[in-house]
Amino acid sequence: MAEISLNITPDDPVLGTDFAIEMVRQMRALDAYGSSDGWPAARILAPFVITKEQKRQIPIVGDPDEVVLSRVNAFYNAIAAMIERECGLMAVPTINLTHEGFGRALITVGKLVVMDKTLRDVHRFSFPTLSKLKDEADKILSVALEIVGEYPRAAGL
Amino acid sequence: MAEISLNITPDDPVLGTDFAIEMVRQMRALDAYGSSDGWPAARILAPFVITKEQKRQIPIVGDPDEVVLSRVNAFYNAIAAMIERECGLMAVPTINLTHEGFGRALITVGKLVVMDKTLRDVHRFSFPTLSKLKDEADKILSVALEIVGEYPRAAGL
Repeated sequence: MAEISLNITPDDPVLGTDFAIEMVRQMRALDAYGSSDGWPAARILAPFVITKEQKRQIPIVGDPDEVVLSRVNAFYNAIAAMIERECGLMAVPTINLTHEGFGRALITVGKLVVMDKTLRDVHRFSFPTLSKLKDEADKILSVALEIVGEYPRAAGL
Repeated sequence: MAEISLNITPDDPVLGTDFAIEMVRQMRALDAYGSSDGWPAARILAPFVITKEQKRQIPIVGDPDEVVLSRVNAFYNAIAAMIERECGLMAVPTINLTHEGFGRALITVGKLVVMDKTLRDVHRFSFPTLSKLKDEADKILSVALEIVGEYPRAAGL
């Protein structure tokens, strides 16, 4: 199964970036039973990376389970943590999903919505490579900081 | 049970207000099976009004079911509709709840958060009178419009 195969090599340079380190921290925080204690970063982040071939094996329609949801939460929590670090203001993620895995992810800073994404097919939430995951996060982060810069008073600066 | 007893009289003047009419519309919209077709407004809104004595009979801890959730949605959808009507901009409600009935309700207008509420004990979501329900909605509406007025550009005006 896609979940088990490791698509991240332990020496992937992306693992050393601030974002990957934050993602690992978030995944550990959400792991209430500590079942991943002692796992290396590559193994913790492995479920986020699914190749196109592997993704094709996941049914197009499916209900997201708790494990997938905690991954989605970890991703947006990590982005919120990065926003917070960059602008010094609290960034709060909110994820609203239907049982079918459709919904909306928001990050707010003060009275400002700095990210607003429609979520689809959450049961297949993944990226083709670790580097693509980081690219997506970087893109969201830079747009978010731009919005804060544009409306600093609404953000609370 | 609290759910069945009617705490709204059919001649309650609040039933004629814009907000109560919008609430009824939202409840009908969320009633996928049309099981409340033909019900008068007082009966449709009755579950929102629970006296203190009735509320005491509901266990303090409980998981909100679909019926209660659709009530919470109807309430915030109706407020969003009122905001939209007043400022002419789209207002989007987002409700994020844990299984235990804790969470957050947001209404956004453009890039602006015009309402941000912490939700608790959602399984007991109710008001002591219909007039108290309307007061709460009016309060949220007026704060929301104030925020839009303060940050018109972020709201998209």
